[in-house]
Formats: sequence, C-alpha cells, structure tokens
Amino acid sequence: MDNKQFVKEVADIEKDFPQWYTDVIMKTELVDYGPVKGTMVIRPYGYAIWENIQRELDKRFKATGVKNAYFPMFIPKSFLEKEKEHVEGFAPEVAVVTHAGGKDLDEPLIVRPTSETIICHMYSKWLKSYRDLPILINQWANVVRWEKATRPFLRTSEFLWQEGHTVHATEQEALDETILMLNVYKEFAENVLAIPVITGQKTEKEKFAGAVATFGMEAMMLDGKSLQAGTSHYLGQNFAKASNMKFLDKDGVLKYGYSSSWGVSTRLIGALIMAHGDQRGLVLPPLVAPTQVIVIPIAAHKGGVNEKVQEVTSLLVGADIRAEADYRDMSPGWKFNEWEMKGVPLRIEMGPRDIESNQCMLFRRDTLEKKAVSLDNIQEVIANELKDIQKNMLDKSRKMRDSRIVTATNMDGILQGVENKCFVKADWCGCRECEDKIKEVAQATSRVIADGEPITGKCAVCGKEAKHTVYFARAY
Amino acid sequence: MDNKQFVKEVADIEKDFPQWYTDVIMKTELVDYGPVKGTMVIRPYGYAIWENIQRELDKRFKATGVKNAYFPMFIPKSFLEKEKEHVEGFAPEVAVVTHAGGKDLDEPLIVRPTSETIICHMYSKWLKSYRDLPILINQWANVVRWEKATRPFLRTSEFLWQEGHTVHATEQEALDETILMLNVYKEFAENVLAIPVITGQKTEKEKFAGAVATFGMEAMMLDGKSLQAGTSHYLGQNFAKASNMKFLDKDGVLKYGYSSSWGVSTRLIGALIMAHGDQRGLVLPPLVAPTQVIVIPIAAHKGGVNEKVQEVTSLLVGADIRAEADYRDMSPGWKFNEWEMKGVPLRIEMGPRDIESNQCMLFRRDTLEKKAVSLDNIQEVIANELKDIQKNMLDKSRKMRDSRIVTATNMDGILQGVENKCFVKADWCGCRECEDKIKEVAQATSRVIADGEPITGKCAVCGKEAKHTVYFARAY
Repeated sequence: MDNKQFVKEVADIEKDFPQWYTDVIMKTELVDYGPVKGTMVIRPYGYAIWENIQRELDKRFKATGVKNAYFPMFIPKSFLEKEKEHVEGFAPEVAVVTHAGGKDLDEPLIVRPTSETIICHMYSKWLKSYRDLPILINQWANVVRWEKATRPFLRTSEFLWQEGHTVHATEQEALDETILMLNVYKEFAENVLAIPVITGQKTEKEKFAGAVATFGMEAMMLDGKSLQAGTSHYLGQNFAKASNMKFLDKDGVLKYGYSSSWGVSTRLIGALIMAHGDQRGLVLPPLVAPTQVIVIPIAAHKGGVNEKVQEVTSLLVGADIRAEADYRDMSPGWKFNEWEMKGVPLRIEMGPRDIESNQCMLFRRDTLEKKAVSLDNIQEVIANELKDIQKNMLDKSRKMRDSRIVTATNMDGILQGVENKCFVKADWCGCRECEDKIKEVAQATSRVIADGEPITGKCAVCGKEAKHTVYFARAY
Repeated sequence: MDNKQFVKEVADIEKDFPQWYTDVIMKTELVDYGPVKGTMVIRPYGYAIWENIQRELDKRFKATGVKNAYFPMFIPKSFLEKEKEHVEGFAPEVAVVTHAGGKDLDEPLIVRPTSETIICHMYSKWLKSYRDLPILINQWANVVRWEKATRPFLRTSEFLWQEGHTVHATEQEALDETILMLNVYKEFAENVLAIPVITGQKTEKEKFAGAVATFGMEAMMLDGKSLQAGTSHYLGQNFAKASNMKFLDKDGVLKYGYSSSWGVSTRLIGALIMAHGDQRGLVLPPLVAPTQVIVIPIAAHKGGVNEKVQEVTSLLVGADIRAEADYRDMSPGWKFNEWEMKGVPLRIEMGPRDIESNQCMLFRRDTLEKKAVSLDNIQEVIANELKDIQKNMLDKSRKMRDSRIVTATNMDGILQGVENKCFVKADWCGCRECEDKIKEVAQATSRVIADGEPITGKCAVCGKEAKHTVYFARAY
C-alpha cells in the first residue's frame, strides 16, 4: 500500500478525528477487536510500545523503592462491599464469576476492576509494626471494567495497567507518596511520551471511588479534548479501616495505616496516537518507538547495497539503537510510506551513489525533513538526532497545548473555549450543581483544580464566591 | 529470627519434604495464600525471581524471532467447544463469568485456562497468504484452572505463565518450531535455573488436550519426584480446522495452517525451591536470585565500616551485580541466617580488621564455605564466584539426578525405584492399561518417552512387545 492509498483509506484527521484514530490503529496493526464485545487484542506492534512504556516506568518506580508483586485477580464479592463509596463506584461495571470447576460457587467472585480491597486485606495480614512501614508495592496486571461504550486503548472491558499500593505510618507520608508518584508520572509523560501534562487535584465528583483525594494528569489531544493519562489517590484510612489494617506504632498504640494507590494503563498508547499523529499515521517518540530507525536499501539489486545497509544497521544495533533493515521485495516508496505510517522516528535510505559518497539520506518523521549525512560516526549522528526528535516532539506538543488554554468568566466563555478545542480555565464555587451545569451546557468536565488564586474570585456559572480555578475540557 | 530458630520452625527436609516446602516458601516471604481458595499472592521476593525468569526467557524467545502480544482473557464458551479433545480436557476446570456490567450475559465467558482457541480465532482473521507465515507470537499472562488440590507455585487456581502460539505453512516447520522451543526451555532450565531436565515426547495419556503430540521437560526434585517444568505442543491442523485458519499457499491452493504452542509458568519457582533447597532454606542460582550478593557490616558502630561497605556495594552494583548492603540494627548472626534462608548466593562480611587488611570474608551459600578475599578487583572476584556457583549448582543437581535414574524390567522394579526416590526407565508396550496399572501400583506416571531403542524389548507390565522406553516417576 503506498501512502496515497493509505491517506485515502484513513479519514481526514481534521474533519473526522475519531475515524482517523480508528483507521490508524487498525491499519498500523497496533490493535484489533477481540471476539467478546469491548475487548481488544494488543498486536505485536502495539505491545512493543507497551513493553517500552513498562520498562521506562518500572525503573522509575523501583528507583523510589517500590517492588513488584502479584495479587489474585478474583476478589470475593464481600471484599468489594467493605468500603461504601468504593462498591457504589465499581459494582455497576464488574464481571462476576459464579461458576468454577464444574460447580456453582458459594460466594461469587469479582474479576478485579482495581485491587485496593484484596491488597489491603493481604497487607492487614503482613503489617504488624511501624518497622514494617512503608509498604511500597506495585503490580502489572490486567483489570476488567464492563463499559458500555468502548474504544481500543481508551476504554475497553479488559485492559492492562500497573497499580501501586502503599501504606504509611502517617497522613503526611501517604500524601507525600501520592504526590511523588504523580510527579513520576508527569516526568515520564513529558520526557518519555513527549506529552506535556497538567496535574492537579480532582474535584469530589471526579475522584476515585473510595479515595480521600485524587490527583490526576491530563493531556491535550490534537482535537483539544483531554485524556486522563494517570491518577494517584490519597486513600487516608478508608481502606485500612475496611480491612482492619493496623500497626503497632512507636508509641505503643495500635493505629490504622494511611494508604495511597496510583495507576496508568494501556490508555497511554491511545494518548501517544492522539497527541502526536498526523495524516500520514503515527508519529512515535524515539523512547517508546518499537523501531527507532528503519534502514532501507535503494536499488538493492546493485552490488554492495544490502551489505552496506547491514553494516550500518549492525553498527546502530551495537550502539543500543533499535534499528532494523527492510530487505523485503517491495519498492522503496512503498516501504517509505509504510514505515511513516507506523511512525518510525528516523529513516535511513542508502543507494549505490550514497555509498560511493560515504553518506546516506536521513528522513525525520516528526519534521518530514530529509538531509544527507556522512556515514562517519553514524551511531553518534543517529543518537543525537533521536534525542533531538524526542525534545522537538515535546516542544511542539507543549506549544500546541499552551496555545489552546483559554480563560473564561462565564458559561458562554466555557462553551466557546471547548468548541474551539481548548482547555478552559474558569473559577468555580465548588458546588456539584455548577459542575453538572457545565457538563450539560458545554459537554465539558472539570479535569483538575489549578494551583494558585482564583482568576476573578467569582464562579463562572453561578457568580457566587469562587473556591478554585479549575481546568474544564471535553474528555476521553 | 536466628538460624537455629528457623531450623526449628521448618520441618525436616529429609523427613517431611512437603512441610519443609510450605515452611520455607512462607517464611522466606516468597508467597502467601490468597483469600479465595487455591489462589496465591506472589510477594515481592518471589515476584523478583519471576521477573528474572521472564527477562531471561523473553530474550531467548525474541532471539528466535518471536514477538509479544496480548489477547483477551475472556473466551466465548462456544470457542472452547470447537475442538473436541480440548473442551473435554479443560471444561471441568474452567471458571465462568455469567454476569457483567449489571446484566446476565447472553453467552457465558470462560476465563482462559490456555489461549489456543481465541488466538487461533484472531490468527484466522489476520492470516491470508503464505507470505504472512510463520506467525510467531508469545504472551505473558495470567490463566485460571480450577484445581481441587492446590499448592503455591505448583498448582494454583490462577497462575502466571507465558504461552507461545505459532503458525506455519508446513507440518515440518511447525514440528521444528515445537522442538526448537523445547530446546530453548531445556537450555534455559539448565543454564539459568541450574536444573538438569529430561526432555521427550509425552504418551497419549499425558499429552495436551487438543495436541497431536506434546513434548515435555521433566526435572527431578530433591525427593525424587518429577516436576513437569515446561511443555511444547505440536498441534497439527487441529486448531486451524476448528477456527478455519487458512492461507493461500504459493501453489495457489487454500490450506489450513500448522500450529504449535508452548508454555512455562510460575511453577518454575517451585522447581527452583525443590531442586536446590536445604535445611537452612532456599539456595538460589545467581542468574535468578533477586539479590546476588549481600554485604554485611561487622562492628558497624566502628568508624569507617559502613562507609567501606557502601563503597564495595556500589562498586558491585556498578558492575551490574545485584548487590545490597544490610545496615539494619540487628546482629550480624541474625542477618547471616536470614540471608542464608533467603538463598542469597554470596555473602560479604566486612569488619574493621578486614578493612585494615584490605580484605573481606566471602561466604558461599551453595557450598557453605567461607574464605578471605582481597578487595582488589572485588568486582571480578565476585563475578567469577557467581559464575562458579551457577555452574556448581547445575553440576551438583545433575550428579544427584543421574545417580537416581534406575532401570526396571517389571512392576516390582518400578515400584522399588520410585520408592527409592528415583526416576525409573522401563519398557512399555504402548497401551493405556499398562500405564494405568503402573499408576495404580506404584503411584507413578509416564513422564516422557526416552529416545532410542527399548532396553529389553518387553513391556515391564504385560511382557508383550515393547514400543518405547519410558521414564516413569511420581510427579508433582
């Protein structure tokens, strides 16, 4: 398939962004629909992105002292019911095992939608003394939330994620951990995914069911909508009390622990696509691209071309660059288009004349620029170019995002802002009614509470005294 | 807890091996029981072993061209029923979701016990031409098999594993892949887990439900019982036919693909424990040990000790050795015992006098030997020592195993062999009745068929003409 054909086969990114998204994820073989409604198959190209995300996040978690573990997927129904808000939030979307090993079960089992209840239950068995604290554990796992409207990566019945669950002796330590992990996510989103994010506390309406406070990071997609890319919850003693998770403190008193939980999921792959893509397809940041450099022989039938292509590819691989040569029996143009569609950051083209001149042509997916570069020190040249792409993609995203944050002082302004594909900063009195009204009129939700003083001091909806400035946006 | 106390608290490894196993896995915090019967929590120390297993296996898979992907956990009940032998084998032990998102489901969903049916369904959508072959995909996932008698790592309702699923144009290629992966497992078991294995084809009774042929690798545990540590299945066209998985071959004819599948699981952690442990607890091969070297300060209150301990630990970490210093406020003896129990391959002890002499004491967990070594080139010394431990553990296991393989020509011999904690090689006519008889009389099952000619030519049970020589053993 050549690029023209691909461009024809995918919807116009400006005119029909949702269809463009679907076309691109299917044609680049990132994902496919599973046989059960709402499920997805993450195909090798999509899963390789997830592996890169996992590796980058995992080392950041471990650097803060977190260790991985694995807890059972099946949660007794009674566990979910221990925390009142939690069960109200999750009960409508759980999948239930009622039958196993040829028998009806005495107690139905919930397939985990998240694991606070079962993990706190285990912690309550392990935790004895303040010496056992903090407990800092993460798990990489699948979770199930039965959603009505699903879209691959963004919202599916089953998805992959990581969930960190920590316990601390004091409120302050648990809050510090909550914010620490939020900042780990933010640094990761910006430096690895090249996606600038806005972080802050969620409103009561938008917080995690069972949390005292939820902090989120929000990323602007190309259509101006927001995607909640990660959350970190301060759980106070809510789950500790529900599962009787106590420890003997230094002062000899038995106390409930304070806990946090935090997670990101395969949603991040959706964020990558919708933050960086263009009409040609994906544009992947080098740090998560499964293939960072594709090397394509030109006039491969000529003597010495494939040999030189292999030599250069091996040099790059030896320098820990994810490089690959494409020797398939297709035209170079066909290959160019396919790898552009797949979002590979750099393309090297090498033909007989390039080789004679000890050079190659270098194409950058992010800027669409092509230039000749010498083969001397090619590893260094490519490594630097990849770094520059990574930085340029973040800069570009940040510029786009910053140019699309507007301020509104009334409902008209909010509506106009989101219609113009912007995030809208507006003051808010703190009441649920005004939040619901914005949702009704502008189909926008509060994303996070902005730090600092209110802009006008008056709620953009009811005009009463404002408590917070909030980012409102339409959201995925 | 000191070692004497630990030794008292764990059952005698010679007298009560099953209790020793349970005591050791619980006290070293490898694992705990989940709240739902038959489930396990893999705790950080156990999960770190699994991460090392994953990393070592994953790179071996990828070196053969395999890529990772992720398929949904929920399989429509009708899928399982497509392959007759397969459904008969798995139906009795599946967990079934009948209710999700607040509603009864039209079609119940099976929680995957293995993924042949759903993966072949997806492949049948993707596969068009011989150019798409081979398909070489693996997934790391959780699976559920509702077992009656469970034991952590060895047999649990939910466990973690990898399952590779490949499709090929010809029978020969699919068979070659089946054997290739069996050999990958064998190399991994011996060189990474330090466990020698016997590989070979399984009998009809013991093969995977739905396979044409199953090949397995069997490891001898310290009690002489066999543990099936991995299997690789040649599936022929069974699943291709069940899911209509066809491709247009070079000759223009539409043909069914030939497939293979292969897997190992968290069972391997159980194998490690039962192949290498001793009365003091775990003995872990360096390549999978979460901590390879523990550095313990002696007389830490004396000036300069902790500083030198930190310097040496940092040097080792810098040389990619998983080293850790233990500064806790406990006696050195307490720490020695704890880390011995946890199976850490090497211990470095450093006190003021050692530091004065520019040396440290080095304790090997595998041989229980202690010696003084110079701090000059300590990274090299330790790296070589770790290699030697890795090699020594395999040699020791192999010697033990080889000394416990006996030959039998009749049922008495088989019974005596397994009673003496041996694997028994015996000739077999090939009929199910004789296999069942051995199970009944000696509680032993056929593990794998040995290559080569039968020993006597007569079945050890019925005396009729033998078809194969088979390894019989009691098994986990």
